[in-house]
Amino acid sequence: MSETRTLANYIVSARFADIPDDVRHEAKRSILNVLGCAIGGSPHPAVDLAIRALGPFSGERTAAVIGRAERLDPLHASLMNGISSHVEDYDDTTPKNYSHTSSPVSSALFAYASANHVRGREFLEAFVLGFEAASRVGNVVYPAHYDVGWHMTGTIGVFGAAAAVGKLMGLSAQEMVWALGLAATQSAGLREMFGSMGKAFHPGRSAQNGYSAALLARAGFTSGERGIEGPRGFAHVLAASRDLSKITTRLGVDFDLRENTYKPFPCGIVNHPTIDGAIQIHHEHHPDPSSIVAVRLRVAPLVLDLCNQQNITRGLQGKFSVYHGAAVGLVRGKGGLREYTDDAVNDPQIKRVRESAAAVGDPAITEDQAHIDVELNDGRRLTKFVEQSLGNIHRPLTDTQLEDKFRDQAVLVLQATDVDALIDMCWNIDALEDVGELVNLAVPSHARVARPSMMS
Amino acid sequence: MSETRTLANYIVSARFADIPDDVRHEAKRSILNVLGCAIGGSPHPAVDLAIRALGPFSGERTAAVIGRAERLDPLHASLMNGISSHVEDYDDTTPKNYSHTSSPVSSALFAYASANHVRGREFLEAFVLGFEAASRVGNVVYPAHYDVGWHMTGTIGVFGAAAAVGKLMGLSAQEMVWALGLAATQSAGLREMFGSMGKAFHPGRSAQNGYSAALLARAGFTSGERGIEGPRGFAHVLAASRDLSKITTRLGVDFDLRENTYKPFPCGIVNHPTIDGAIQIHHEHHPDPSSIVAVRLRVAPLVLDLCNQQNITRGLQGKFSVYHGAAVGLVRGKGGLREYTDDAVNDPQIKRVRESAAAVGDPAITEDQAHIDVELNDGRRLTKFVEQSLGNIHRPLTDTQLEDKFRDQAVLVLQATDVDALIDMCWNIDALEDVGELVNLAVPSHARVARPSMMS
Repeated sequence: MSETRTLANYIVSARFADIPDDVRHEAKRSILNVLGCAIGGSPHPAVDLAIRALGPFSGERTAAVIGRAERLDPLHASLMNGISSHVEDYDDTTPKNYSHTSSPVSSALFAYASANHVRGREFLEAFVLGFEAASRVGNVVYPAHYDVGWHMTGTIGVFGAAAAVGKLMGLSAQEMVWALGLAATQSAGLREMFGSMGKAFHPGRSAQNGYSAALLARAGFTSGERGIEGPRGFAHVLAASRDLSKITTRLGVDFDLRENTYKPFPCGIVNHPTIDGAIQIHHEHHPDPSSIVAVRLRVAPLVLDLCNQQNITRGLQGKFSVYHGAAVGLVRGKGGLREYTDDAVNDPQIKRVRESAAAVGDPAITEDQAHIDVELNDGRRLTKFVEQSLGNIHRPLTDTQLEDKFRDQAVLVLQATDVDALIDMCWNIDALEDVGELVNLAVPSHARVARPSMMS
Repeated sequence: MSETRTLANYIVSARFADIPDDVRHEAKRSILNVLGCAIGGSPHPAVDLAIRALGPFSGERTAAVIGRAERLDPLHASLMNGISSHVEDYDDTTPKNYSHTSSPVSSALFAYASANHVRGREFLEAFVLGFEAASRVGNVVYPAHYDVGWHMTGTIGVFGAAAAVGKLMGLSAQEMVWALGLAATQSAGLREMFGSMGKAFHPGRSAQNGYSAALLARAGFTSGERGIEGPRGFAHVLAASRDLSKITTRLGVDFDLRENTYKPFPCGIVNHPTIDGAIQIHHEHHPDPSSIVAVRLRVAPLVLDLCNQQNITRGLQGKFSVYHGAAVGLVRGKGGLREYTDDAVNDPQIKRVRESAAAVGDPAITEDQAHIDVELNDGRRLTKFVEQSLGNIHRPLTDTQLEDKFRDQAVLVLQATDVDALIDMCWNIDALEDVGELVNLAVPSHARVARPSMMS
């Protein structure tokens, strides 16, 4: 049987009861994480501009946009949710194919659940299946596909959104084949967009296009039957080499969700060990920032290729400065969204510590490691070697750390009591009668709408 | 200067006065042709299903959909126009890169002109520039890009729609760079969709996505600056080899529009010489269909690879049957849309002639040629050798033949007087005060709306 049809059959026939408990729990962690990122990213100018440009073309405004007061039709809401959840580079990563899969999958699902009635169990199941569909399609073409320049979050996200929304719609196996085919033929997104708003556009458009693919397939709009594996299909056309068995091997038994990881800091992952170590020094020694005379960093050589900016004035530049990462960790003991604003970059204490720092690239240091050496004005030396960076697969964020990350972002938009309620709803999402209530709580309080009793 | 920026500067700064007269006339021929295809394709089930699936998500219904009574927002109207204009495989072809560029470019422009006020000169200019942008981007990556399995009408159409709509919006050069970048990062469409509705979806989605790219760029939504030529941009990622000079060489001097060709028959181009020859025999000899005993075809071997179906019952199969092409040419003396319906395929006379035919592949026959030998029951033999197939670059359709092709399709939806008026408007489009009036006339009469005086 064709890989496209095998995957379609699996998505259509999978049952909630067949999803292992640990996978369900990891799905909740992923949903909590990506929802927090979407709320935290929702005030970003990229979201403002996208709503300004495309909002006037919205259909009936039946869906909430995460974190925003505006309402849009669910296709446009999917787009905006995708932009906001990825724009701070703070969402999740599946290390085996370096894609950020939760963003496109959840963005479509949140929009669908806002405009329709979806029970929590169905939502969680659709998220797991959408994530798995996207990630397995990614495994087929990784690394050739990524190496040539595709941004996998865009190219594979569309499969995940189509699968997830199609599952909630109850597509037949044939319709799911078409939904996956229409996803394949919309697969797009170039790494050339990195450093621009175009990067965050990718998961958004994937969410929107995957949702559309499911709608079209449900109506009977046909695609090729072998969109993934055909001789002119996705895997052949978008990758110089491929392994189609990655779709079918242990399907329904192994879940890529188990290997999902969550960024503790909203910046390039190569800076993470330095920030992590600096935060540890802060908490262990509480050095007075004004007492810091010099900061000496030993890092993987790649860090200086990517993040060697020191004389900076804007928050976005801070994401590409290992010195800034060290400074905020030492001065504030954290590295959240508020440590990457223009204000933070221009904070006199942080600026002084950042400019006191020097870094050397050391081939003996892996990309998960960093050595930090802080010299104080009384001659004391505070040092820390980070062996495994917080947030990587070997040292995952705990549930409590994920809650802290969520809270840190969500309070930018929501009241603290609502933030706590949302955290609780994510952990208990499988018990929710209507996931639209969760989405409704993830927007500013004045923008909430009374949800009718949507029992279907 | 980068190729993306060179192209953007050209599009932004080009003036109507700089477009040569012959290019303007070819643009009118292209517009007449693609408008007729959109009207003729508008009743197709693919359009019905797309409107059923996505129409409920339409924003304010400010745009007409060519040939249809429904109105949609201009982004959705772009999608539907793209599907209808390509779904019968009857639109134009640029032989140097085998793309069907008018469909995505005009589909967005018709939608834009319906929802806004656009003078005919501006429309014609935007069409020429959009066509040229798309075709030149196609030339950069052809043939490697096509050979691996991309459907160029989809992948390059998005550039053309972005350029054309962006020109009408008056984008700055920087905004046009972003519009082209956002087009690049949405470039998609797989040949694996051939034989399904997914094929016609490509120019539709390209039109819609290119239009969106222009809207986003106008709002200030950024993309990478080198979307076409960057190391992770369109040309590198979507083609194994490329020639970027195809964008810049004689830009504004040479126009690919000059080489545009128009299909005389709504089916695969390899059948065209056979149909052409059969029609010639019909007109020269008027053989009684019941007198035809045998039809012997000598054709290029590729024809039998692609179009060897003889025992058929559906109109779509007729498009892949060289025997059906010979039969409709001999029996009806034409090969229009009505010769490719289920009714035509099951017409007893056509069926009998089709089943009396035999074909041999002959390597001495080129793909532009065919030899037809008809044996009658009185022993007479009617033969015809087609040296150059009607509609190819060496034997283009005349303006009158294009009018006939337009009329043949448009009368399926519109009244004859309106058809004549539309033909006249296309030939004089540069004199129109409001192209929206033309679009308004291209829908069923009961669906027309009074256009306000839209002087802007």
